[in-house]
Amino acid sequence: MFEEILLSSDFQMTLLMAVALGGYLIAYRVNQSAVVGIILAGIMVGPSLLGLVTYTDFVSSLAHLGAVVLLFTIGLEFSIKEIAKIRYLVIGLFGVVVPAFGGFFLAELFGFDFKAAVFIGVALTATSIAITANVLREMGKLETEAAKAIIGIAVVDDVLALLFLSMAEGIVSGEISVISLLIIGAKAVGFIVIGIIIGKLVLARFIVRLDKTSLCIKYPESIFIFAIMAAFFYALSAELFGLSAIIGSFLAGASFANVKLKRGEIFKEGADHLQIIFASIFFVSLGVILDINSITINLIWFILALTAVAIITKIVGCGLPARLYGMSLKDSTVVGVGMAPRGEVGMIIALIGLNQGLIGQGVYSAIILVSLLTTIITPLVLRNWLYKK
Amino acid sequence: MFEEILLSSDFQMTLLMAVALGGYLIAYRVNQSAVVGIILAGIMVGPSLLGLVTYTDFVSSLAHLGAVVLLFTIGLEFSIKEIAKIRYLVIGLFGVVVPAFGGFFLAELFGFDFKAAVFIGVALTATSIAITANVLREMGKLETEAAKAIIGIAVVDDVLALLFLSMAEGIVSGEISVISLLIIGAKAVGFIVIGIIIGKLVLARFIVRLDKTSLCIKYPESIFIFAIMAAFFYALSAELFGLSAIIGSFLAGASFANVKLKRGEIFKEGADHLQIIFASIFFVSLGVILDINSITINLIWFILALTAVAIITKIVGCGLPARLYGMSLKDSTVVGVGMAPRGEVGMIIALIGLNQGLIGQGVYSAIILVSLLTTIITPLVLRNWLYKK
Repeated sequence: MFEEILLSSDFQMTLLMAVALGGYLIAYRVNQSAVVGIILAGIMVGPSLLGLVTYTDFVSSLAHLGAVVLLFTIGLEFSIKEIAKIRYLVIGLFGVVVPAFGGFFLAELFGFDFKAAVFIGVALTATSIAITANVLREMGKLETEAAKAIIGIAVVDDVLALLFLSMAEGIVSGEISVISLLIIGAKAVGFIVIGIIIGKLVLARFIVRLDKTSLCIKYPESIFIFAIMAAFFYALSAELFGLSAIIGSFLAGASFANVKLKRGEIFKEGADHLQIIFASIFFVSLGVILDINSITINLIWFILALTAVAIITKIVGCGLPARLYGMSLKDSTVVGVGMAPRGEVGMIIALIGLNQGLIGQGVYSAIILVSLLTTIITPLVLRNWLYKK
Repeated sequence: MFEEILLSSDFQMTLLMAVALGGYLIAYRVNQSAVVGIILAGIMVGPSLLGLVTYTDFVSSLAHLGAVVLLFTIGLEFSIKEIAKIRYLVIGLFGVVVPAFGGFFLAELFGFDFKAAVFIGVALTATSIAITANVLREMGKLETEAAKAIIGIAVVDDVLALLFLSMAEGIVSGEISVISLLIIGAKAVGFIVIGIIIGKLVLARFIVRLDKTSLCIKYPESIFIFAIMAAFFYALSAELFGLSAIIGSFLAGASFANVKLKRGEIFKEGADHLQIIFASIFFVSLGVILDINSITINLIWFILALTAVAIITKIVGCGLPARLYGMSLKDSTVVGVGMAPRGEVGMIIALIGLNQGLIGQGVYSAIILVSLLTTIITPLVLRNWLYKK
């Protein structure tokens, strides 16, 4: 009698968390990235294998919540200065253009129609900053030059991918307007600039003052609550300005990056533990999105080719300019590979294409699988090859 | 163009978290329980006032997730021995029977039909352990005799409320069978007994061994991940046995209560920070459930009377037996008041009644509001009156 309620999304939720944390531990045990272990756990209980959990709005929103908290905690480790550089802008531009053309031409080669090819190109522009950042964090590599470059480029990438998506919709509908693209771009850049200024002038100063108040002596956790609240308000604003919510929470985190607090350790430890739970929520949901049964045999070659193109175009588009800017061969390869995961961003673009009737169920499933494959391959390459001890 | 996705449940989620944490800080600032601040924040953005967030399956599942983690962290502070006492069984029995009859007779008095009256009685049996436990934790009172009694009685209460719900469904449908009730009761008690045994013999020993492995030296957070995973598996099992998931996660937490670990502090700090976020998720959702606009004028007297009966019957049903067992007047009042919040448990029962056509929309809304009022009144009374400094 309770079953009707409990065997619903509540139950799925509990199950999802239990297996995600199981995947986490198993990945640690075999010395692999938790990202891979958790995604595989999601694939296992999701529609691809056991079918115990289905991908619903609920799982999607949870993933969103997970990504917001995850990027906030990653932001805490970066100061804005380190990631705001002209060269990352240039690298980011190539890192979006090269995959877009690569995806488009491959799709044309496989005989997809023009609309679908445009959309497949756009889906390849995106980078899921959460994946690589988390893998680097696991390996204690967030302090490196390559990590800073990846994060800086990924922020640029998010803005450009937004513009590309708008352009693609314009090209497909025939209603492309330079003005509307400029407005979208200006809003996105405006949010980032205003967000950084408010972060440094208001948030960072306020938290230092809050740290000294009697409220904080009585309830030391107030600092932590305030910071997380700021992260969610930033995420909210980013969404309103057309950017990913995670860019917002990342900026909020970065605003607090170099702030010296009496209760600083409490703050970091809290963030680390949140990160464990919310990263699990986020990654397990990526596994659940995939329904391997929707992939037909004749799509397999296209998926494999698209995965290769997705990875190579990011290595060429980001890694090559990084090398030309004087980065070491290893670091520029790390940057190229690090930008490869499409993760949830590629999946969201695929969903938009499906909803607008620009791509069919087959192409949709293909993009989902490519996003997932690039997401699983990256940690494996980074951990077992590029950063092998 | 992104808006269609972002103004959906993702956006609502971000908004919900931001205001929940805001409510948390404001409550702290004015020296009130965070529970009240967060619920009021939920009422503000929910359908009752601003209508920005609607109560969906998603919000419900989030609340569920929040409650599971919350009760796990509360379980960490209790050893099983302290709460498993015969006298809590007796007090719990009165604490269920007295409110059930109180609710039933009040409903009859107000002219509701027999089925509705039975259901209203059952809705009053429940106690939301999460509310009082969190308020006591905030005030640093979890170590007290009264807190142990409340938790012990609440576990008994959950089992008995389950039985009462089954009985009510049987009485209403005319198909009541002693055997099926016995099976339900045996399953619930069986789960608790087996859960405690496995917790002590397997979980507690395993975590001590895990603490000494090289995995834990390399990844100290493994301890934490394992414990949370165990909490979700326990929650899952509790649901399968017909109990609330939170009873499961509480038992998992209690299994680790007296375990001595090298990495013990990491563990406690992690749990404390999780608790902040997940308690926020849980309490804010309670505010969103309420739609004040669905309350008609002629229901108001009934709601006020039912709220009074809900509180008085728990004070009489639990507080009086506690006093007779020799507790001080203050402690037995704390126990009585502490058992009063119906929270999400009352709401779930109301939802079952609505879905089965036993109660109408009006009674449903009334029970939701009574559950909410008892939940808000309890922290106010505990903090400003019973535990006033």
